[in-house]
Amino acid sequence: MQKIHVPVKNAYDVIIEKGILQKCGKLIQELNITSAKHFVIITDDNVDKFYADIVVTSLKENGFQAEKFVFPHGEASKNAEILLKIYAFLCKQEITRSDCLIALGGGVVGDITGFAAATFLRGLPYIQIPTSLLAQVDSSVGGKTAIDLPEGKNLVGAFKQPLAVFCDFNTLQTLPEEFLIDGMGEVIKYGMIADAELFENLCQYDLQSIKNHFDEIIPTCIKIKRDVVAQDELDTGLRMILNFGHTLGHAIEAYYHYENYTHGCAVAIGMCLMTKYFNNSQDYKKLKSCVENYKLPTDVPVAIQELVSLCGNDKKRSGSQLHYIVCSPIGTANIKLDSVREFQKHFERVI
Amino acid sequence: MQKIHVPVKNAYDVIIEKGILQKCGKLIQELNITSAKHFVIITDDNVDKFYADIVVTSLKENGFQAEKFVFPHGEASKNAEILLKIYAFLCKQEITRSDCLIALGGGVVGDITGFAAATFLRGLPYIQIPTSLLAQVDSSVGGKTAIDLPEGKNLVGAFKQPLAVFCDFNTLQTLPEEFLIDGMGEVIKYGMIADAELFENLCQYDLQSIKNHFDEIIPTCIKIKRDVVAQDELDTGLRMILNFGHTLGHAIEAYYHYENYTHGCAVAIGMCLMTKYFNNSQDYKKLKSCVENYKLPTDVPVAIQELVSLCGNDKKRSGSQLHYIVCSPIGTANIKLDSVREFQKHFERVI
Repeated sequence: MQKIHVPVKNAYDVIIEKGILQKCGKLIQELNITSAKHFVIITDDNVDKFYADIVVTSLKENGFQAEKFVFPHGEASKNAEILLKIYAFLCKQEITRSDCLIALGGGVVGDITGFAAATFLRGLPYIQIPTSLLAQVDSSVGGKTAIDLPEGKNLVGAFKQPLAVFCDFNTLQTLPEEFLIDGMGEVIKYGMIADAELFENLCQYDLQSIKNHFDEIIPTCIKIKRDVVAQDELDTGLRMILNFGHTLGHAIEAYYHYENYTHGCAVAIGMCLMTKYFNNSQDYKKLKSCVENYKLPTDVPVAIQELVSLCGNDKKRSGSQLHYIVCSPIGTANIKLDSVREFQKHFERVI
Repeated sequence: MQKIHVPVKNAYDVIIEKGILQKCGKLIQELNITSAKHFVIITDDNVDKFYADIVVTSLKENGFQAEKFVFPHGEASKNAEILLKIYAFLCKQEITRSDCLIALGGGVVGDITGFAAATFLRGLPYIQIPTSLLAQVDSSVGGKTAIDLPEGKNLVGAFKQPLAVFCDFNTLQTLPEEFLIDGMGEVIKYGMIADAELFENLCQYDLQSIKNHFDEIIPTCIKIKRDVVAQDELDTGLRMILNFGHTLGHAIEAYYHYENYTHGCAVAIGMCLMTKYFNNSQDYKKLKSCVENYKLPTDVPVAIQELVSLCGNDKKRSGSQLHYIVCSPIGTANIKLDSVREFQKHFERVI
């Protein structure tokens, strides 16, 4: 068992162990993180097939009351309609502030469950059990919760730290390859923004061989995220570096109406385009090759000018100005602030 | 101008002045409380008739961009549907985290606007301009925001302190008598829980004569609320005293499906019933007489046992236990914790 402490205001641990799902009920007792006796597990239909009953059983075996709420998988479920159904389920189960939610699944499950926990009865505790690579290295740590609006992703949300994160690499074994690819976009990002050695290692592996290195790589990524979040819990400064590749990535997702490219794929393209226009050609070549190792795309068949023209809508925009991240040299992150127009100008030179 | 400082984590001032609406734009500049240039005023159709354009004009005259969003008045609007319309309006206006919302109206407007401010883009600043007595003495101070669910009131919400509260007694002149009566329920509550002198004064006035004493009474109420909130921002202990009369009050509102009795009326009845069963008969007689001065009801035509049986659903419930407040002697508040059954037993004696 490995513990990574996250020293935010309401501090908590990420606990990493293979097979942790089977003993989560016992662990909750031993860790003494909550006095809750009644748990609601929120998950999607894909994850439910493999893991929800394991968690329910482990809780019940340890004397807890446990129910599950299952909704259809996919980003399309991260909306107000499903959120209202979660609230109705919590009412029906007579959940009080002394009870506890569990987010069991990928990023969508974690985000919407976290937001329900942040807002139902003005807040009750929750535990994250991320089952996808993306959720394990990124979305389960840091306390960002959200739902999407018809107008855009993550437009409504809250900061709500979990009581704990239970991370079980075993769940990655049932993860379809497309989700592994999706998660690798964020894994490579951590190398780019903060860890040149991690990046060099990732250049050596591929989608198969990396599975033998999750034991080192996932904790490394979580620690990078932890260090950033601990310094900027409420996303007012440093935390922006986690958005490397995301300004263009979000534009790509919006351009394709969140079809065609998953979040990880869009971020991979965003990182490649940023590196192409802001780093030397050697960096770009290395990143492109690394991204290709993991079957991630490196470009889109859209004129770059058209993409950057969409960046004015980014949530991170401050008035008419825009923050963006440049990783030159690889392994470092620099926060830039420009007018939207100045940012767009960078992409006018021919490469 | 009178300033009441609220020393919570993100501290702010309640600024009380007659005619403050007309100069709110100038005041926002002078106070230097925000760098926002773009404001969205959220209000209901009743308040819109009298005050929204005054606020918009004052903001525009001082170089700010300002739009208003108007929704139908009444508790029935404090729901997810109106909230989603507010979000859509904010998207359409391209509101960013650097902009600012203004809640202009009574408790419903303040609660839903505050919750929108707490959650849109994971939080942006807002200013409260309460126009009803209830909002001025209670809901605008303390940072509690919420919407209702079909299953109950205020079941979804967040803690979000405003940048400032602008309180203008002039708006009470256009307030229909029924809303004045509604607000008096909470005013009397402050006397009961914390200020025997305030209570004695309230016993001397009536619905007409009290208008000459708002200058003293409203700041007194705000200061009581401020003192409680400052000690328990997140409602984990002392703040429960503000719920005197509310446990039974909520049961009455639920019993009548939020019709027949306004919140203030339900609280008045709740206070009278609690005092009847937990204080000496003199206290009960005094409170009953005071409540009647303001045309508030003192009882409901429902068996007390039927009402208390509904108290098990209260949001303040902790597992099978229930917190409730006893004000004996008048001017003090005692927090009690009992099993739901023990609480109900108190009402079994014949009075």
